[in-house]
Amino acid sequence: MTKSADVYLICDPWRIIEDGWHKDRNMVSESVFSLGNEYMGVRGYAEEGVGAQSMRGSYFNGNYEEIDLEKSYKGIVTKTHFMVNSVDWLYTEIRAGDETLDMAAAEISNFRRELDMRDGSLKRSFDWHTRAGAVIHLEFSRFLSMENPRCGFQKMTFNASQAIELTVVIANSFNSGHGWNKKVYWDMEQREWLENSAAVQARTVRTGQQVFSGFSWKASEGAVHSRNEGEKSAGFEITLPLKANSEAWIEKSVYNYAVKERNSAASEVWKPAMAVLAGGLPSFDDALEQQRKYWAAFWENADIRIEGDSLNQQGIRFCVFQMHQTYHGYDPFNNIGAKGLTGEAYNGHAFWDTETYCLPFYLFSNHQAARNLLEYRYATLEQAKERARMLDCRGSCYPVATLNGEEACNLWQHASLQFQPSTGVAYGIAHYVKLSGDTDFLYGHGAEMLVEISRFLESRGGWNNDQTGFGFYAVMGPDEFHMMVNHNCYTNFMAKKTFEYTGQTLREMEKNAPEKYAALCAKTGLTDSERKTFARCAEKMIILYDETTKLYEQHERYFSLPHIEISKIPVTDFPLYHNWSYDRIYRTDMIKQPDVLMFMFLYAQEFPAEVKLKNYEFYEPNTIHESSLSPSIHSIFAAELGKPADAFRFFGFATRMDLDNYNRNTSEGLHTTSIAAAWMNIVYGFGGLRSDGAELALNPTLPRQWTGYEFRILYRNEHIRVKVSETGVELSVSGSVKEAIPLVVYGKRFLLDSAPVIIPFE
Amino acid sequence: MTKSADVYLICDPWRIIEDGWHKDRNMVSESVFSLGNEYMGVRGYAEEGVGAQSMRGSYFNGNYEEIDLEKSYKGIVTKTHFMVNSVDWLYTEIRAGDETLDMAAAEISNFRRELDMRDGSLKRSFDWHTRAGAVIHLEFSRFLSMENPRCGFQKMTFNASQAIELTVVIANSFNSGHGWNKKVYWDMEQREWLENSAAVQARTVRTGQQVFSGFSWKASEGAVHSRNEGEKSAGFEITLPLKANSEAWIEKSVYNYAVKERNSAASEVWKPAMAVLAGGLPSFDDALEQQRKYWAAFWENADIRIEGDSLNQQGIRFCVFQMHQTYHGYDPFNNIGAKGLTGEAYNGHAFWDTETYCLPFYLFSNHQAARNLLEYRYATLEQAKERARMLDCRGSCYPVATLNGEEACNLWQHASLQFQPSTGVAYGIAHYVKLSGDTDFLYGHGAEMLVEISRFLESRGGWNNDQTGFGFYAVMGPDEFHMMVNHNCYTNFMAKKTFEYTGQTLREMEKNAPEKYAALCAKTGLTDSERKTFARCAEKMIILYDETTKLYEQHERYFSLPHIEISKIPVTDFPLYHNWSYDRIYRTDMIKQPDVLMFMFLYAQEFPAEVKLKNYEFYEPNTIHESSLSPSIHSIFAAELGKPADAFRFFGFATRMDLDNYNRNTSEGLHTTSIAAAWMNIVYGFGGLRSDGAELALNPTLPRQWTGYEFRILYRNEHIRVKVSETGVELSVSGSVKEAIPLVVYGKRFLLDSAPVIIPFE
Repeated sequence: MTKSADVYLICDPWRIIEDGWHKDRNMVSESVFSLGNEYMGVRGYAEEGVGAQSMRGSYFNGNYEEIDLEKSYKGIVTKTHFMVNSVDWLYTEIRAGDETLDMAAAEISNFRRELDMRDGSLKRSFDWHTRAGAVIHLEFSRFLSMENPRCGFQKMTFNASQAIELTVVIANSFNSGHGWNKKVYWDMEQREWLENSAAVQARTVRTGQQVFSGFSWKASEGAVHSRNEGEKSAGFEITLPLKANSEAWIEKSVYNYAVKERNSAASEVWKPAMAVLAGGLPSFDDALEQQRKYWAAFWENADIRIEGDSLNQQGIRFCVFQMHQTYHGYDPFNNIGAKGLTGEAYNGHAFWDTETYCLPFYLFSNHQAARNLLEYRYATLEQAKERARMLDCRGSCYPVATLNGEEACNLWQHASLQFQPSTGVAYGIAHYVKLSGDTDFLYGHGAEMLVEISRFLESRGGWNNDQTGFGFYAVMGPDEFHMMVNHNCYTNFMAKKTFEYTGQTLREMEKNAPEKYAALCAKTGLTDSERKTFARCAEKMIILYDETTKLYEQHERYFSLPHIEISKIPVTDFPLYHNWSYDRIYRTDMIKQPDVLMFMFLYAQEFPAEVKLKNYEFYEPNTIHESSLSPSIHSIFAAELGKPADAFRFFGFATRMDLDNYNRNTSEGLHTTSIAAAWMNIVYGFGGLRSDGAELALNPTLPRQWTGYEFRILYRNEHIRVKVSETGVELSVSGSVKEAIPLVVYGKRFLLDSAPVIIPFE
Repeated sequence: MTKSADVYLICDPWRIIEDGWHKDRNMVSESVFSLGNEYMGVRGYAEEGVGAQSMRGSYFNGNYEEIDLEKSYKGIVTKTHFMVNSVDWLYTEIRAGDETLDMAAAEISNFRRELDMRDGSLKRSFDWHTRAGAVIHLEFSRFLSMENPRCGFQKMTFNASQAIELTVVIANSFNSGHGWNKKVYWDMEQREWLENSAAVQARTVRTGQQVFSGFSWKASEGAVHSRNEGEKSAGFEITLPLKANSEAWIEKSVYNYAVKERNSAASEVWKPAMAVLAGGLPSFDDALEQQRKYWAAFWENADIRIEGDSLNQQGIRFCVFQMHQTYHGYDPFNNIGAKGLTGEAYNGHAFWDTETYCLPFYLFSNHQAARNLLEYRYATLEQAKERARMLDCRGSCYPVATLNGEEACNLWQHASLQFQPSTGVAYGIAHYVKLSGDTDFLYGHGAEMLVEISRFLESRGGWNNDQTGFGFYAVMGPDEFHMMVNHNCYTNFMAKKTFEYTGQTLREMEKNAPEKYAALCAKTGLTDSERKTFARCAEKMIILYDETTKLYEQHERYFSLPHIEISKIPVTDFPLYHNWSYDRIYRTDMIKQPDVLMFMFLYAQEFPAEVKLKNYEFYEPNTIHESSLSPSIHSIFAAELGKPADAFRFFGFATRMDLDNYNRNTSEGLHTTSIAAAWMNIVYGFGGLRSDGAELALNPTLPRQWTGYEFRILYRNEHIRVKVSETGVELSVSGSVKEAIPLVVYGKRFLLDSAPVIIPFE
């Protein structure tokens, strides 16, 4: 953990500001200044193009391409897919005389790029000193509509020191290459120009998914235009006369329609989309007004305030903002890529991070979004069944990495040995139902997934040689530094919980909803005998625990592995995946990220503090945290276990991972799922929220580095404000409360109604 | 083990005969009828070309090409190499009028293909009924000189029912494509025609290894010739008048000069080779005469006779014949590919099979060959050091698969986790020195390899968590059905033996050859402290053994793995690598091939019979023998442990693996290294030879299926004949014996001199 901040952005409570162009950090800025609305995302690139490192990334949730992989052994994927770089709907060229604007080549001054989290808009402005001697002040604005997510808006204003004529090309273009191989994966299908609007439609080469991209534009007085026809683009060339010291402008309203279905007819997409375009799109200003209202309402219930720590204040707002931009439950066929919609690293794939790290954010702010994340898994149940079959198993095995539900991970040692995605879905269902009380979901899609996941686990696990215990052989747990072990404690524990929750759900259904239970049995072929088998697997699950030391053993014989003093590993050896022989990573007691601690976090209330302390003190020194998800979990433990210094140290860069580019790879995209861990770090860590017991518990502590903080949680349909100050904790709900809300604070039960509960520090 | 014979060859004590062309088995026949002389090998293809499945394979020991692999993690190979299909020095076309001979298209009769193991010649003959109504009897003969291994010979005779003119093209051609991708890896450098001879020289595209291929020819009366110039070939077109019922012929003497060095100048190869060609090559008949004498002398000391079992008689002679064809110590830079020089499967790579399975054959017949196999490892010591460095280790790590000393195995799970090649080399050195007494080798190249191997083992191994025991973590033993385990008993045991033998050798050297010892220390940097470390590793090596059950545990926690009843696995599931999900193979107690039994075989005399029996009875039922090397080892144990039925059952197809195509993949090449196991099966199994103790031991048993058998072993410079009949055992040496030879037979010590020792059965 020898990470350091690379600070160049300006600290501000609500804005991210780059003052002066940091050309060498341009790719980092493009990631940080990404905009998204779940439907689509666009990196913060300079739309007019720039002769610096840049990735003109524009992505649509669920649009992907496929490639074949070399065939090897059975169960190893032979095809993978990746989020594909899509239409560049901000394509722009700007010329003054014979000079084309390029920030990297031109003389520019007063550069500023600014993301405003209060309206989700990105602005960029600078003065361009043309070779011909003019100074033109340019401002670029863009935002993606949250209310109408197919719409994006762009505005450019120009103000010149002298009269001058600008030529501006604006277009929607399918000519952007994919990041790692520069390949364009789009075949153009159709395009059309109308008076002040144009549209182009293209289809991915192999997957046959279509994207329609149309726009209308207007400009300030005197603009003259002609058609601009690129290879796979539709646009206009606009000649714009600038008077001296007077503002001219061009604005563009964009309508993108991206289709997840494969191989549908071109006209099925084209016709309805053209009708929308013909019907007229909102103007930039009207849409921005709406946008401001949207975000204000959002922040009302989602904001986290930190007093006395402006860096973390900015950081956590950036995290919350990005989480919402990436996903808020617009479409149950969307999920959350490891980099959101901000870059191509991890290929846009969703991992077990979704249910394990991201879901709590939605559980406490947006139940529909939380449910939709689980509906996504239900929508891909067939793919999970197919994956289980590939692995010679029954039931459903959820993929390690996926965009469309199919396993996309081409490292068999992960794809064939890691089952935390499957147990994670079961955990997510249980967590969601506990907090939402949504038995409708549970007795329908939820129960079906639980049965299929349990079925998979039963078929993948094994009984030990003397048939006395059940568990998992040849698996990799969350700790990826032990590849192929037996009885990984996390895997066994989570499987046990899955079997138990499945059993409990089925018992409940049998009693409370016998018709649904009968339908479930008919659909899945579930029998009493299979239920007994699940129960027996749970009962006989091998959990390696030493009563004397109170330690869980991460996997069979972990305790006897060679010890390595990780503090003595030279800094230059990191990252170990690059600098160590691959096999060397797997044969010591060094661990990459929490494994035993991870299940103790997920079921925090089931373990006595002493046991947590012993395991924390044993495992943390062996952990190198070579996953961005690791420190926050440790911070949460430290906060609970009375180790505030550790808690704040591990919190460290949680909120500013990307703003300060701690891993030096923000250029590839934001660490979207670690952003979720930062939220948990505050709410579960300092706030001491525990949501795995019968009632919601809070144990807030105030880091001595702060003077106060405040967060809100949606619970029992109320947005509860938790405010921690130097004097104590205040819990309140704005407005009237239908039914008093039971909460356990510092171990004591309170009923919260309209009057705040105030618990002074002693 | 549900293999069945595919019988189509005729049984004969000294010949392999195909009577009538088996077109559908043509590729199998090509493998079975392969010829080789260690320097080069050629498959038994029809030289005139055939419209049936065929692989025109011609290989030179040590000639290879390279390809790059995708870069992934450190220590995983990024480049591999493979034995390259080389010059087709038997290229032939035969035309009668406008009809070109193709056995698959033409009407033919009386087909016969015959390999004679008494002279190493291959003959093929048949009658060709031309469309024009003629019947031409053709005979093709070929052999590869054993005395002058760069030379090969071809003869064709023709006898027609009516006068007819034949057109025959003969050439040496570099146009043969590689088997799996049909790619030609040769760039032609030079060619030249003289009156009755021609030559062509080419170079491999990437590795820049050169092969010169020249020939001279003569033909019966009336032949008229012209130059034949193919793309990368040099040849002649010969018009040959056939009189009715009168023999005409063409014969060809070939000189091939294959260079292992890379990128030497063309002239360095061309000039000396052309000089040989110009000097005149031996005629077919003269060379064949020499060849007969060579093989007669060979069989004198190498033959195995079996009475009452003509199938195994033919089979074992075929094995011995192929072993000698593949390797007999001609060049210390050669080794033994898994398929010898008979096909492209396994890419011509040598494995740990060389020291573990093949070496004993040479130790008891040809000490120079045995030493050369070890010299090969010395010649590639630098590559083994580089491989150790790639794995973040010190010393030398011998490759899992190689042709040139570099690791060529592109499956990291084998290349990075299997160390039996390294311990195998150490074992080979010890075994060779024990039987040859060659301290000159031991104190020079041998000791240097031992130090470097021990150094590697010390750096790859690890001390357990409480520092009380040493062993290997994350390894794969010989049993490839447990990928990444700790304390694999074979690996730990063999490493312990390596450390001990290294220590013993160094103590001996210090005392007996202090100058050599000093030189060794200077060269390798060996210190007393390092020697102590080796000794401590040996002393503290963790060997999992249960005193109560007398069982060795194959690896940590093997005994608690889920059990699978392998007899219940459906036949259609085999081979498991194709039909089972890859990870499924690794998580039960099923094993692929002997692992514990393997080290108990190599050090047979160190384990009491009871312990061997317990382990045999425990492990054999868990073994699926999905390696062609497995059954013979089990047969050897069964013979020793008084289980003659098991012994004969496991011997089963050992000698006829390829003749009867038990694995249905003989088409890809012969199972050369299992052939070596067949030899061990008789000599170590039924003969009960044990060579790991202080003196040579024999415990012959006579399978009830046989009436007698006989083999010879070279020991203390004498060829001892061991003859087992229904009445007893007779040991004898032909001629006088310098010094009486001590032998332990049935536990009793004898001194063998010129008079035979006869031990009647009781």
